[in-house]
Amino acid sequence: MFSETHIIFFTLKTLIDRIRHTITLSPEAERHIYTIAKEQVIPKGEIIISPDKKSRKVYFVMDGCLRSYCIGKDGKEHTLQFAVQNWWIGDFIAVYNNEPHTLTVEAVTKSIVIEFNSKDLDEIFIPFPEFEPFQRKNLELHVVSLHKRILNQLQLTAQERYELFLQQYPDIEQYTPNYHIASYLGITQQSLSRIRAERLKKK
Amino acid sequence: MFSETHIIFFTLKTLIDRIRHTITLSPEAERHIYTIAKEQVIPKGEIIISPDKKSRKVYFVMDGCLRSYCIGKDGKEHTLQFAVQNWWIGDFIAVYNNEPHTLTVEAVTKSIVIEFNSKDLDEIFIPFPEFEPFQRKNLELHVVSLHKRILNQLQLTAQERYELFLQQYPDIEQYTPNYHIASYLGITQQSLSRIRAERLKKK
Repeated sequence: MFSETHIIFFTLKTLIDRIRHTITLSPEAERHIYTIAKEQVIPKGEIIISPDKKSRKVYFVMDGCLRSYCIGKDGKEHTLQFAVQNWWIGDFIAVYNNEPHTLTVEAVTKSIVIEFNSKDLDEIFIPFPEFEPFQRKNLELHVVSLHKRILNQLQLTAQERYELFLQQYPDIEQYTPNYHIASYLGITQQSLSRIRAERLKKK
Repeated sequence: MFSETHIIFFTLKTLIDRIRHTITLSPEAERHIYTIAKEQVIPKGEIIISPDKKSRKVYFVMDGCLRSYCIGKDGKEHTLQFAVQNWWIGDFIAVYNNEPHTLTVEAVTKSIVIEFNSKDLDEIFIPFPEFEPFQRKNLELHVVSLHKRILNQLQLTAQERYELFLQQYPDIEQYTPNYHIASYLGITQQSLSRIRAERLKKK
C-alpha cells in the first residue's frame, strides 16, 4: 500500500506543480485535488471513453499517449486529438456541452493518467475559485491550438501538415499505426505513404 | 450627444443582460463594463484587425456579420470564422497566446459591435473575479464548436459541410460572396457552385 500511495503522490505532485506555475494554491485546495484525483495505468489499446459509457471522465496524461476519435457513417475512424505527457484528454463536446458521448478515447501506448470525474472538476470552482484563472488559461491555449489546426487544415498542403505534425509529436511514428496519423491529418493512408516516400527521397 | 449615449446604453444593455444570464453582476462590475466598452459602427468591407496593426481588440457583435481570415502563401484567403449577432470575434491566437497578429477581421456587412481592448478584458478578473465563470463557459463553448468543426472537416463530405453551414448561418448567402463561404468550407468556388447546382436539382 505504501508504495502505491507513494506513486500517486509523486504523479499528482507533477500536476500540482504545473498548477502552481499559474496560480497560488492553498493547502486546502491541494488536499482537495488529492481527494478527487485517481491515478490509473491504462494498458495499450484499452478504451477508457466510448459513446456507450455514461460516466464523464477527463484525463491528465502523465506518461504515454492517448487518442480521441469518432467513427464516421462509413465506419472509418477520424482522430480528433493525440494527448501526450502534460496534456488533457476527454470527450470535451460531451463534458462542456452536456451532450451524449460521441468520441472514443483509447490508449495508443501503455499510459499513466490522472483521472477526474468531470463533475468534480466543474464543482471545484465554488469552494476553490483560485482554480478559475488556471482553467481560463488552459482553455485559452486550447482555443489557440484548435484555431491553428483549422487554419493549417485550410491553408497547408497534406505534406506541410505532416511536417508540422512531426514537429509537434516528434517520436509518435514509433508507436502509432499509420491509419491513426492519416485520420488525424484528414488524408488516406496511401497519401501518407506517398508523402513519406517523397520525404525520404529528398533526404 | 444624448442620443448617442442612449444608443450605447441600449446596445451594451444587451451584452450585460447576456452576462447576467450566467453570473450575478455587481453594480460596480456593470459600471466597469461601461468604462471599457466602446460601441462602433463598422461600414461594410472595413478591416478592423490586420497583421500590421499592433492594438489588440476583441469585438462582441450586436448586428451584422464579420469575418476573420488569414492569407496563405499563395495569396488566397482562408476564412476561420464568421461572427453574427451575439458572437465574439478577434484574433484569438494573438490575444490568448501573445503572438503577433496573423488574422484579418473585416465587416462582411455594415455591423454594430462593442469593442474592447483585450488588455482591459484580461485585467477585469482581478477586481471582478465574478467574470471568471462567464468567461470559462464562453471558452468551453468555443472549444466545443471548434472540436465539432474539426470533426466535421474530417468526416463529412463537402456537400454535408455546406448543409450544416447553411443551418448555422441561415441567411448568410444573401450577403456573403461565394469565395468567403468556399474558403470557410475548405473547397474551391467551382466545387461550391457544383454542390449548389446539385442541391437545386434535388429540390
